[in-house]
Amino acid sequence: MSETKVLAHYILSSRLEEIPEDVRREAKRAILNYVGCALGGAPDIAVGNAIRAMQPYFGAPAALILGRAERADALHASLMNGISSHVYDYDDTTPKNYIHPSSPVASALFAHASVHPVSGRDFLHAFILGFEAESRIGNAVYPAHYDVGWHITGTAGVFGAAVAIGTLLHLPLQQMIWAIGLAATQAAGLREMFGSMAKALHPGRAAQNGYSAALLAQNGFTAGERSLEGPRGFAAVQAAHYDLSKITTRLGEDFDLRANTYKPFPCGIVNHPTIDGCIQLHQEHHPDPARIAAVHLRVAPLVMDLCNQQNITRGLQGKFSVYHGAAVGLVRGKAGLQEYTDEAVNDVPVKCVRECVTAVGDPEITEDQAHIEVELSDGRRLSRFVEKSLGNIHKPMTDGQLEEKFRQQAMLALSAAQVETAIGMCWEIGELEDVGALVRAAVPA
Amino acid sequence: MSETKVLAHYILSSRLEEIPEDVRREAKRAILNYVGCALGGAPDIAVGNAIRAMQPYFGAPAALILGRAERADALHASLMNGISSHVYDYDDTTPKNYIHPSSPVASALFAHASVHPVSGRDFLHAFILGFEAESRIGNAVYPAHYDVGWHITGTAGVFGAAVAIGTLLHLPLQQMIWAIGLAATQAAGLREMFGSMAKALHPGRAAQNGYSAALLAQNGFTAGERSLEGPRGFAAVQAAHYDLSKITTRLGEDFDLRANTYKPFPCGIVNHPTIDGCIQLHQEHHPDPARIAAVHLRVAPLVMDLCNQQNITRGLQGKFSVYHGAAVGLVRGKAGLQEYTDEAVNDVPVKCVRECVTAVGDPEITEDQAHIEVELSDGRRLSRFVEKSLGNIHKPMTDGQLEEKFRQQAMLALSAAQVETAIGMCWEIGELEDVGALVRAAVPA
Repeated sequence: MSETKVLAHYILSSRLEEIPEDVRREAKRAILNYVGCALGGAPDIAVGNAIRAMQPYFGAPAALILGRAERADALHASLMNGISSHVYDYDDTTPKNYIHPSSPVASALFAHASVHPVSGRDFLHAFILGFEAESRIGNAVYPAHYDVGWHITGTAGVFGAAVAIGTLLHLPLQQMIWAIGLAATQAAGLREMFGSMAKALHPGRAAQNGYSAALLAQNGFTAGERSLEGPRGFAAVQAAHYDLSKITTRLGEDFDLRANTYKPFPCGIVNHPTIDGCIQLHQEHHPDPARIAAVHLRVAPLVMDLCNQQNITRGLQGKFSVYHGAAVGLVRGKAGLQEYTDEAVNDVPVKCVRECVTAVGDPEITEDQAHIEVELSDGRRLSRFVEKSLGNIHKPMTDGQLEEKFRQQAMLALSAAQVETAIGMCWEIGELEDVGALVRAAVPA
Repeated sequence: MSETKVLAHYILSSRLEEIPEDVRREAKRAILNYVGCALGGAPDIAVGNAIRAMQPYFGAPAALILGRAERADALHASLMNGISSHVYDYDDTTPKNYIHPSSPVASALFAHASVHPVSGRDFLHAFILGFEAESRIGNAVYPAHYDVGWHITGTAGVFGAAVAIGTLLHLPLQQMIWAIGLAATQAAGLREMFGSMAKALHPGRAAQNGYSAALLAQNGFTAGERSLEGPRGFAAVQAAHYDLSKITTRLGEDFDLRANTYKPFPCGIVNHPTIDGCIQLHQEHHPDPARIAAVHLRVAPLVMDLCNQQNITRGLQGKFSVYHGAAVGLVRGKAGLQEYTDEAVNDVPVKCVRECVTAVGDPEITEDQAHIEVELSDGRRLSRFVEKSLGNIHKPMTDGQLEEKFRQQAMLALSAAQVETAIGMCWEIGELEDVGALVRAAVPA
């Protein structure tokens, strides 16, 4: 049987009660983290610009956009949820394939649940299946697909949204196969967009287009039936090397939610070890920024591939600058949302330190690690080797840390009382009679 | 200057009166052919299914869909125009890159013009610029991009729609660069979809997403600024080999509208020499289908790559079957819309002849040529070598033939009086005060 068909079969045969308890628990952590990121990003100018551009085309205002007062149709709400949840690059990541997995899936599901009654159990199940399909399809084409320049969050994400919505719509096998095909043929998103608002468009369009794929398939709009494995299908066209067995092996036994991680810092995850180490040096030595003469970084080669921007002027660029990450860690001892604004990027002490950072990619350094050496003007040297940074799969953020991260973001969009209600509902999502109640708690009163 | 910037500069500096008369004339032929195809395809089940799926998400019903009674927002109207104009694979083609160039561009423009007043001059200018940008970007990545499996009508088409709508919106340089970037990061469409409705989704989404790209850019939604030439940009990611100079060389002097062709048969263009030759054999010899023992085709290798489906049951598959093309040519002496229905594909005499066709790819045969040999059961042999088939760039359809093709298609959607009015307005489009009048003439009364 073809991989597309095996995957579709699995989706249709899965039962929530057969999914291990630890996976369901991790799904709730992912959803809590997702909703916080959507709320934090909702007031951002990128979301405002996108709404201004698209509002004249919104359908009947039945659906809610997380963290926003405007109403839209469910497809445009999916798009806006996707942009807001990714715009700060603060959402979750599976380091095995560098997908930001929750955004495309949950952005569509929450938009859908704001219009149609969806039980917490059905929502959780659809989320887990969408996440799993997306991540496994990503695994099949990673790393060749990502390395050449695809933003895998967009390209794999569209499958996740199609599968998640297709599950809620109870698509039969033939239609689920078409939905996967219609997702495949809309898989897009270039890494050349990193540092611009268009990066956040990717999970937004993935959510919207995946949702549409399920709707089109439900209405008999046909697609190629070997969309993953065919000679002109997703894998062959979008990856120089791929392994389709990663889509089908141990389906229902292995779950990539177990490989999910949550970011303590709102920037490219490959910068995190450097930032973590620089914060540690700040906390222990409180170096005077004016006396930092040089900073030498040894980092994983991928860091240089993704985050080698030093001469920057915009907050969005800071997210892809390992130099900026080092600077804010050393100067401010933290790297929160306030360290990735345009103001922070142009702040004089931060800028001065950023400009004295040098970085080299070292194949001996893994993507979890970083080596930092700071030269002070009095000749002293401070150094730190980070083996595993906070948020790493082996050093995960605790539930309490995730809640605190949620609060810091959600307070930008909601009242304090709403924030606590929303946190409670995320933890209890599996028991909610209608997830619409959570969405309604997560828009400005 | 980067290729993206050079292209954007050219678009902003172009003036209609500087575009050669023969190019403007070919644009009118392309528009006539496009409108006919959209009208012919509008009643198709693929369009009906897409409308049924998307109608609950339509915005305010301000825009018209060519050939349909439903109203939609302009973005969904773009999508539906794109599907209807390509669903029969009867729309135009530039054989130098195999793009179906008019559909993505005109689908967005007609949707826009159904809502906003657009003079015929502005429409024609935007169409020519969108067509040119799309075709040049396609040239830069062709053939590697197409060969690996991209449906270039979708991937290049989104640029055409973005540039055309961006031109009507008078985007300044920075926003035009972003619009091109937002198009690049939505460039999608897999050849694995050929033979299904999803093939026609590609120009539809290209029109809709290109249109959105222009709107987003206009509202300050930023994108990468080296989207064509950057190391993770469109060319590097989506083609193993490319030549970016094809985007910028002789801009404003060479126009790919001169390389456009119009199909006499509603199927993959590479089948046309075979069909043409088989029709000639039918007309000269009237062979009894029951006495056709074998048919041997020698065709260009690309035919075997694209149209090597023999065991088929659906009309859409027939469009990508050189065997079916040979069969209808020999049995019916024609290959019109009626030869590509499910009924025609399953018609017993057609099916019997189709099953006795063999085809080989021969590098000596160009894509304009075909060699046909028919063995009859009495031992006679009929053969034909086609050097240039009707519709070829060197043997173009005449204005009269284009009008007749228009009538055959448009009568499926409009009254006879409307058909003639629409034909007249297409020829006069450059003089129309408001192209909305043409759109209103091209929906069911």
